[in-house]
Amino acid sequence: MPDLDPEQFRLLAHRYVDWVADHRAGLESRPVRDDVVPGSVRDRFPAEAAEEPQDLGALLDRVDEIVVPADTRWQHPGFHAFFPANASLTSLLGEIVAGGLGPQGMLWSTSPACTEVEQALTDQLARGLGLGEAFTHIGGGGGVIQDSASSAALVAVLAALHRTSGGRWRETGVTGAERVYVTAETHSSLAKAVRVAGLGERGLRTVPFAPGTRTMDPLALAAMLAADAERGLVPTLVCATVGTTGTGAVDPVRAVAAAAARHGAWVHVDAAWAGVAALCPEFRHLVDGVELADSFCTDAHKWLLTAFDASLLWVRDAAALPAALSLTPAYLRDSASDSGAVVDYRDWQVPLGRRFRAMKLWSVLHGQGLEGLRAHLRGHVILAGELARRVRDHPGLELAAEPSLSLVCLRVRTGGTDADDDAAGRALLAAVNATGRTFLSHTEIDGRFVIRVAFGSPTTSDQHLEELWTILTNSVPIPTLR
Amino acid sequence: MPDLDPEQFRLLAHRYVDWVADHRAGLESRPVRDDVVPGSVRDRFPAEAAEEPQDLGALLDRVDEIVVPADTRWQHPGFHAFFPANASLTSLLGEIVAGGLGPQGMLWSTSPACTEVEQALTDQLARGLGLGEAFTHIGGGGGVIQDSASSAALVAVLAALHRTSGGRWRETGVTGAERVYVTAETHSSLAKAVRVAGLGERGLRTVPFAPGTRTMDPLALAAMLAADAERGLVPTLVCATVGTTGTGAVDPVRAVAAAAARHGAWVHVDAAWAGVAALCPEFRHLVDGVELADSFCTDAHKWLLTAFDASLLWVRDAAALPAALSLTPAYLRDSASDSGAVVDYRDWQVPLGRRFRAMKLWSVLHGQGLEGLRAHLRGHVILAGELARRVRDHPGLELAAEPSLSLVCLRVRTGGTDADDDAAGRALLAAVNATGRTFLSHTEIDGRFVIRVAFGSPTTSDQHLEELWTILTNSVPIPTLR
Repeated sequence: MPDLDPEQFRLLAHRYVDWVADHRAGLESRPVRDDVVPGSVRDRFPAEAAEEPQDLGALLDRVDEIVVPADTRWQHPGFHAFFPANASLTSLLGEIVAGGLGPQGMLWSTSPACTEVEQALTDQLARGLGLGEAFTHIGGGGGVIQDSASSAALVAVLAALHRTSGGRWRETGVTGAERVYVTAETHSSLAKAVRVAGLGERGLRTVPFAPGTRTMDPLALAAMLAADAERGLVPTLVCATVGTTGTGAVDPVRAVAAAAARHGAWVHVDAAWAGVAALCPEFRHLVDGVELADSFCTDAHKWLLTAFDASLLWVRDAAALPAALSLTPAYLRDSASDSGAVVDYRDWQVPLGRRFRAMKLWSVLHGQGLEGLRAHLRGHVILAGELARRVRDHPGLELAAEPSLSLVCLRVRTGGTDADDDAAGRALLAAVNATGRTFLSHTEIDGRFVIRVAFGSPTTSDQHLEELWTILTNSVPIPTLR
Repeated sequence: MPDLDPEQFRLLAHRYVDWVADHRAGLESRPVRDDVVPGSVRDRFPAEAAEEPQDLGALLDRVDEIVVPADTRWQHPGFHAFFPANASLTSLLGEIVAGGLGPQGMLWSTSPACTEVEQALTDQLARGLGLGEAFTHIGGGGGVIQDSASSAALVAVLAALHRTSGGRWRETGVTGAERVYVTAETHSSLAKAVRVAGLGERGLRTVPFAPGTRTMDPLALAAMLAADAERGLVPTLVCATVGTTGTGAVDPVRAVAAAAARHGAWVHVDAAWAGVAALCPEFRHLVDGVELADSFCTDAHKWLLTAFDASLLWVRDAAALPAALSLTPAYLRDSASDSGAVVDYRDWQVPLGRRFRAMKLWSVLHGQGLEGLRAHLRGHVILAGELARRVRDHPGLELAAEPSLSLVCLRVRTGGTDADDDAAGRALLAAVNATGRTFLSHTEIDGRFVIRVAFGSPTTSDQHLEELWTILTNSVPIPTLR
């Protein structure tokens, strides 16, 4: 048979599971990141695929030989780069069940369970995050799992184009007058969405920061919207970010939404990384004003233990995405869909097909409970607070921005010029990452080089902070002047 | 710790694997599709997520209780609806490894192995399918795994918009003069891509069928392209389909590409379902002319045993997708990328993040070999041939189109009017699907109701054809007139 039978699978999959357990148990003994020569992995593969079936047990040896030594270990407790991409073992259990079931959830009828578990869990999470009943399926809105916050931003832009055009967009496309409002800290996926949607770079308007901040200035936004509308342009969407990628800055959602409302622009809240923190009452202020937004996105696959891809998008109007995206050929017409009693998620996304991604989210919610998730989030915020305290107290380091949740942005102080500091910062980052014990990434603030430390792995603990601190302070140059 | 430790995972995951093996072993004893009341699954979930962690072993009981009885079983051997969505147990092994590694492959540097395994395997498959060396990474083109053929079509449209605009598209967006050419049989994802890209319905041009076929008429295409260009419109992309969703029709790629070339339009070959069959020499003619195309897409997740999502897209110019889609903020700038020696797949797709999807494709190629895959494909083509033969010989049935690979389109002949036949066809489909032993879907050809039988599950065998035939012929009305 051209697949394993269930008993063959059972035997092999136990070995694969053991491999995963062993791999994770040994993760910390490896460097966070391997030093890989470009092409060296590809070169291990023959030009042609094998003709004959090969032993699937032996594939694990090939993985050990080829893949394992050429990786960047996002699940390593010393990985503090970019944002976390939690691929928890808890969520892998859900993934195994989803793979076993193997449904295709494009329509409700093609897997009612796949669709309704997603509805139920996104409703639960809307409540857990304090988004308000309006964002639940029961309440006339609803949540959907997208592959990424990029795709969530794209469908928000498309729904906005449809709505602000009075429904003409589907027939006649964009006019070129549509404008989308962001800041210099907004994630690049918004610029990409604007490009994909056919607006070009001119479709993107960058709103200044409020003085002394890295957050959108609602007054400047209001002025820009009014001036654009005056010129005949169409304010289409305003993106407020809760926790920017660079520095974790939080735009004032309430004030931004109020300004946007005057022009009928769609308000999208991109809380890809930080939004999940609203599960904790003490961070609930992050979603203040969200009831004025049209859509809200946060990624379960960054800091909420659920393996990529599981970006959670909620909209306040359940009809908004289907209005923009539906399109039903004969071979997909179906009585359940026609009844209007069900959600067909293919109309909430760009692709047609979909996996049972809610299953891994379910295993996380079930296995951790909200209390477990809060403990996970709080642990990293505590680590970041402690790191920030030490940076403040160290003569050769300084905070480049206020710490935001579990993200700390820091800079070297040499006592010399900004250029000296930036060069020292680059050297420090290279030295720290070269240890293989920790891995940090970088950004720029006002043209200055900044090191980012983003805690987030479930295996990162106090001891990893201590190790990071030792490495950092061993590598940082002592300032020559104060 | 807010995740399972490796030993907890080991114990639980063995139970999960056993659950999957048992579920698959018992699949055939269940109906292909459950009769589900809308809302009945959602109603089983409380409004709020649990506060406390719950036993992950018990989650399997919840799945058995809530999910299993409310599903459509795409992996059931009696599932012949839509197109197959093979979620083989072989590919699930790869998925387990991918989950254990848990990389984020957006950049080469964020997981060199994730990127290079994908390059190596898409190169192997380009050769296996006979696409030609120009579509390999080594040969200056390259393959990439997209989530779906919909997304593959979208990025092809975007690359085409960029190229035909002479590179102005990124800055100024679409002009409204761009046109994309399809037929009435082209998959709806092309219309969706055109809409998403901001062209509106007017951006889509439907080329007539060649007389007596359901395939694109290259002469009509040539005339339409010339007339449109004459009117100042911009022929941007022509989509040739190899194996349409409705009837499995195959557009003449070579002639279509020749017509498109005269106007500089991008040629995208959508072979989502049928393309994989080109692994068999006897079906290699399906990709005849592909060397003239700019992009070629086929889904490993339909009929090639690899669980969704694994849509394979190849382009002949490795620079085409990054030219249209790249966008690099400071926090993603990286020396490996700057060197030009590596591929950063985030520039080949709309989303930023990506899973290690090549791993499950690797387990399939490794465990089956090309011979195993060919046997899988051929088995279904033989079943379809046999079904078609019987339909031809049955007085109450007729073929609605020539069978295409593993797809058979049939119609009821009552001896009455077309409307009588269509009504009888609807009744037959309902009766057949009501048995729960098999599940078929439908389409329309020239406004007539047509039943589709698409073989494709690795567990579907001769005995399932016999069962289907018994059910069909027991349910079909005997013609009253001949």
